[in-house]
Amino acid sequence: MSPTPVTMTSPVRPASYSWEATSEQVAARYGIPVERIVRFDLNTSPEAPELAGRVLAAGRFESSLSEYPPSDYHRLVDAAARRYGVAREEILVGAGADEVLDLLGKAFLPAGGAAVVPSPTYAMYRVLTEQRAASVLSVARRGAADGFALDVPAVREAARHASLVWLCSPNNPTGLPDPPGAIENLLAGITEDAAADGRPAPVVALDEAYADFTETTLLPLRSRFPRLVIVRTASKAYGLAGLRVGFAIADRRTIDEIATYRPPGSVSTVSVTVVATAFETDGWLEGRVAAIHAERERLAAGLRDAGWEPGPSVTNFLLVPLGSPERAAAIAEALLRQGLVPRTFGAGHPLSDHLRITVRSVEEDDRLIAAAREIGAGIGTEIRA
Amino acid sequence: MSPTPVTMTSPVRPASYSWEATSEQVAARYGIPVERIVRFDLNTSPEAPELAGRVLAAGRFESSLSEYPPSDYHRLVDAAARRYGVAREEILVGAGADEVLDLLGKAFLPAGGAAVVPSPTYAMYRVLTEQRAASVLSVARRGAADGFALDVPAVREAARHASLVWLCSPNNPTGLPDPPGAIENLLAGITEDAAADGRPAPVVALDEAYADFTETTLLPLRSRFPRLVIVRTASKAYGLAGLRVGFAIADRRTIDEIATYRPPGSVSTVSVTVVATAFETDGWLEGRVAAIHAERERLAAGLRDAGWEPGPSVTNFLLVPLGSPERAAAIAEALLRQGLVPRTFGAGHPLSDHLRITVRSVEEDDRLIAAAREIGAGIGTEIRA
Repeated sequence: MSPTPVTMTSPVRPASYSWEATSEQVAARYGIPVERIVRFDLNTSPEAPELAGRVLAAGRFESSLSEYPPSDYHRLVDAAARRYGVAREEILVGAGADEVLDLLGKAFLPAGGAAVVPSPTYAMYRVLTEQRAASVLSVARRGAADGFALDVPAVREAARHASLVWLCSPNNPTGLPDPPGAIENLLAGITEDAAADGRPAPVVALDEAYADFTETTLLPLRSRFPRLVIVRTASKAYGLAGLRVGFAIADRRTIDEIATYRPPGSVSTVSVTVVATAFETDGWLEGRVAAIHAERERLAAGLRDAGWEPGPSVTNFLLVPLGSPERAAAIAEALLRQGLVPRTFGAGHPLSDHLRITVRSVEEDDRLIAAAREIGAGIGTEIRA
Repeated sequence: MSPTPVTMTSPVRPASYSWEATSEQVAARYGIPVERIVRFDLNTSPEAPELAGRVLAAGRFESSLSEYPPSDYHRLVDAAARRYGVAREEILVGAGADEVLDLLGKAFLPAGGAAVVPSPTYAMYRVLTEQRAASVLSVARRGAADGFALDVPAVREAARHASLVWLCSPNNPTGLPDPPGAIENLLAGITEDAAADGRPAPVVALDEAYADFTETTLLPLRSRFPRLVIVRTASKAYGLAGLRVGFAIADRRTIDEIATYRPPGSVSTVSVTVVATAFETDGWLEGRVAAIHAERERLAAGLRDAGWEPGPSVTNFLLVPLGSPERAAAIAEALLRQGLVPRTFGAGHPLSDHLRITVRSVEEDDRLIAAAREIGAGIGTEIRA
């Protein structure tokens, strides 16, 4: 195994996912009315689509709320198959992408096994690996100058020792997709290595939670790579995080393997109906995505005017380098005092000198820009002094 | 380990939970309009409480549907704490009792470990144990004449070799609670054995999904037995199976251990709000439960008139012995031809000569009674000939 960029963590009793404070907790701590709290830390959309309210008010669901959800989520699977351009049998529904990721751990990561986690990335991959009593093979991503791209040779080498590889593109929290061809090359290399080593290829989980913000997806690769599982969600561009709906999309034999672990109906009938309706309704998503892109560029420009240097992003969030962990922490605290909640990265995290900022509404973003103007430079000087 | 009643199954690649056919599938198979299909097989309530529709139509939720559900489910936990008479810190929320059971497996059942399953009981305990790559120590319950009661000495002995014991009272699919004092004695015995053996006591998961139909609960035992975890649900008496809300209730240190595995927000914001409202609203549950008890007795009398002999039940279902697996299967098929879906037990199951029948509405139950009158005796004769 290439020793330099890979850090192996042996199985440990897993740490709990560290929950974000609720808005009520932030409000109480900073003495701010809860209505003034704005979540710049969760990469959610500023509002749910109108059609959600209409479906709820109509009150017509696939089945009575006193019955379990339809075990095959028939209408939702049909709608998702059309939306993603895949066959029904290539889709599995979960309670948000998070449950889908959990099912992938259950299906493909035995106790004592190992999973590759290119870092920094979404924190749940490590948490879920540890929950399976498996080892994390952490492979550093390249730096900001290289768009935090995957270190393909290092990931490929680490994958020789793993049964599962967690990828995320566009990557959270760095905001960019991997370079064209990188993941395809990685998949080809992993497949080749497994054949050469005479063992089954590891499953590659590719989290495309933010792909709806781009025009690209690696979904077409699933036919060439049957061990590729692509994860999608209704929580980001679709603006329905509160409903908890996510999907695994893969070759049907791989979906069948995951389905062994699918619980009988974890997704509410209400969620099934609203998300199916959203997927069946054409034309509204494109407008939302365009608005978020425009607002992201406006927010980035405003923050640059305030002296910050947000990195490039194709998603609904910005990663902002702030020079030092101390300055990032001080700015986060100053924002929190105004009810603006940024995403921080703990001490020891490779991005501990960054904040991650979700693109929200014009009004909310204007509050952030104003706050950045007020506090940014002053605090930086103070901290550096 | 007491050899006679215990059957040990070594870890195997788990079988998928065998899904019930959807109503659409039953309708298509038997050429019946889907509106004529009645689910007597899922132990759900015949209708959701009216307040669910009112909450949905009002469209006011804890947070926007574009945001993740509040990570602490604050209002729901408060409402559940009042309803169950426990402290907030003694409650953990899951996406239905099924997710709670999954979390118990994750927290307390390591790969290669073992869990005790008194049988017959709810099928998920075995499924979840197998999903953990753990062994099932199956302990036979006593027979119908003894109300299918736990074999306390045998379960106690098996528990010496397990880290988790799955109990269900009132038990599904047998319909009765364990005799007064039985589970308390078992808990005391298990605790004593663990102390004598110098090892931690196994966790005892007590599924009280059907306890809302009775006036009794073993919740008070949690203070004496900190490794007792009681599972409750909004799916049965509350009539909200489609919303997927369940609870673990235990000593707060045990809840903290389970919380390590709790995913960040698996329960929809809509579900959180509706179930919180249902729990906050007094007076309506008692009427529903009384109606189900009365209707259960009416249904049982009607089936007895038709020549069947349903066993006693304190729940919303009846277990009906039908003499032989062949007769049970033939009657199930005859009911299905009329769109009435009973719960069957596969070949080899100790109850393969039984059907389980959910108490539904008067109109629906009348269809079942009429069908039983028409087909019961005739088919029995035919099959026996």
